[in-house]
Amino acid sequence: MNRNELFELIKRKKSYLCVGLDSDIDKIPKHLLNAEDPVFEFNKQIIDATLPFAVAYKPNVAFYESRGVAGWNSLVKTIEYLNNFGNEVFTIADAKRGDIGNTSKMYAKTFFENMNFDAVTVSPYMGSDSIEPFLQFPNKWTIILALTSNKGAANFQLARQNFLETLEKLGIRSMIRKRLYERVLEDSQEWGNVDNTMYVVGATKSEFMDSVRSFVPNHFLLVPGVGAQGGSLKEVSEHGMNDHCGLLINSSRGIIFASNELDFAKVAAQKANEIQKLMEDFLIAKKLI
Amino acid sequence: MNRNELFELIKRKKSYLCVGLDSDIDKIPKHLLNAEDPVFEFNKQIIDATLPFAVAYKPNVAFYESRGVAGWNSLVKTIEYLNNFGNEVFTIADAKRGDIGNTSKMYAKTFFENMNFDAVTVSPYMGSDSIEPFLQFPNKWTIILALTSNKGAANFQLARQNFLETLEKLGIRSMIRKRLYERVLEDSQEWGNVDNTMYVVGATKSEFMDSVRSFVPNHFLLVPGVGAQGGSLKEVSEHGMNDHCGLLINSSRGIIFASNELDFAKVAAQKANEIQKLMEDFLIAKKLI
Repeated sequence: MNRNELFELIKRKKSYLCVGLDSDIDKIPKHLLNAEDPVFEFNKQIIDATLPFAVAYKPNVAFYESRGVAGWNSLVKTIEYLNNFGNEVFTIADAKRGDIGNTSKMYAKTFFENMNFDAVTVSPYMGSDSIEPFLQFPNKWTIILALTSNKGAANFQLARQNFLETLEKLGIRSMIRKRLYERVLEDSQEWGNVDNTMYVVGATKSEFMDSVRSFVPNHFLLVPGVGAQGGSLKEVSEHGMNDHCGLLINSSRGIIFASNELDFAKVAAQKANEIQKLMEDFLIAKKLI
Repeated sequence: MNRNELFELIKRKKSYLCVGLDSDIDKIPKHLLNAEDPVFEFNKQIIDATLPFAVAYKPNVAFYESRGVAGWNSLVKTIEYLNNFGNEVFTIADAKRGDIGNTSKMYAKTFFENMNFDAVTVSPYMGSDSIEPFLQFPNKWTIILALTSNKGAANFQLARQNFLETLEKLGIRSMIRKRLYERVLEDSQEWGNVDNTMYVVGATKSEFMDSVRSFVPNHFLLVPGVGAQGGSLKEVSEHGMNDHCGLLINSSRGIIFASNELDFAKVAAQKANEIQKLMEDFLIAKKLI
């Protein structure tokens, strides 16, 4: 799905909600455990119920991988099911991959070619050639970790670096201090562009959203952490939205595990609908719909 | 396997060679493609042939994942086969994982609990709470990316940061410049220790080995890049070895794809034996055997 198609989808659904399919088999409703593939059955019902309110779905690969071959089967069935909806859903493999070139190429093939996800999350620690193989796939998206929502983000991402930069207008070289995540935002724009790169920016760091937007005003951002991790939808939307919306805001546990009774899908839909209504207001306020 | 057991294994085999099982189905000998599971058959023959010369095996998870469920089956069969050898082999899942705490916990469970690998490689970008869940598993090893062997390592890992540090003896606070990978080496020692943490240090950066050892004199290092990536075994061994050896040096393509004819396993054994002999000399020179 390309950038305009994603924007059209957002306007059509009046939503920029991404539902995180962190489908832990130990947390899904017990009555599903008799199904042939309980996790897929859970995902299918969650997707069917929340589809009017969500533009994107994001399986968290760890929760599938941890179940071995059975888990990979659930993941494959889930993405195949999502792919049936064509341009009605944007799909993200939350995999946090990244390795030397020939290995990143295999990861890109896994998620883009074999499973046909629209996007995959990657870690920038290994630099340009660990990211570039992902960027080679047309109409696919590489979502680079920039500023994550966990406390460990402070360890390295927020650390400041000094480096020389030439001030173009004056022609002088000056020492500039930038945080690591700012440098990731800046350098990675030499590898990708607004049509194939997004960034992970944690909602719980919305005080940093203005800084992020000063580096990447036009990119889409994947914002985790609204819900269980306590981010603020309002703050993120007001500070992060651009003229293509430019936001996909994720909620996982707050939607999919809102109930673990027979009514889980209905309750998930209610929670998704509540968020969608708020998002609709922010899209109207920004005059995008 | 604990640190002393690993050291004993190294002394017994007179080797610190790790064989990288980057078992790309498109590169394995054609005559194996008729086997029920060609990749597992390839791995099994490589392992059997190289076992006298190698202390560790490192499946590169991307090459398995990219084949979906069939690939995960090959990976599971490979680790089960390796686990039969008990303390005769140290096993590493080269997975480069790392995510928020509850997700890292699932990745740790995947590799340590379900598959019983001795070690897994992780990316430090997300900081302490992305690493700590891996460190909870007794007798298991977390191998943190520090300085990798690819050109992209220069993008962020080598970038220098200024930060305040208290000079203990003098009690004054001073501005210190450190590269990101140095900071990773330093900070991560607060989370783990020499008995559960190793670091990835690229052989093609052996000019940095002295710097690495000034931060982590006693840790084991996993060194990729000897062979196809052109690192120097001599330089790494002379600058990197400590009193527990402290090195696992990997070769993947240079061993496993040295021949793709009927004799591939025999040629792999010859290549592994050549490296082992050199390693034996370095261990003798260091008076470890």
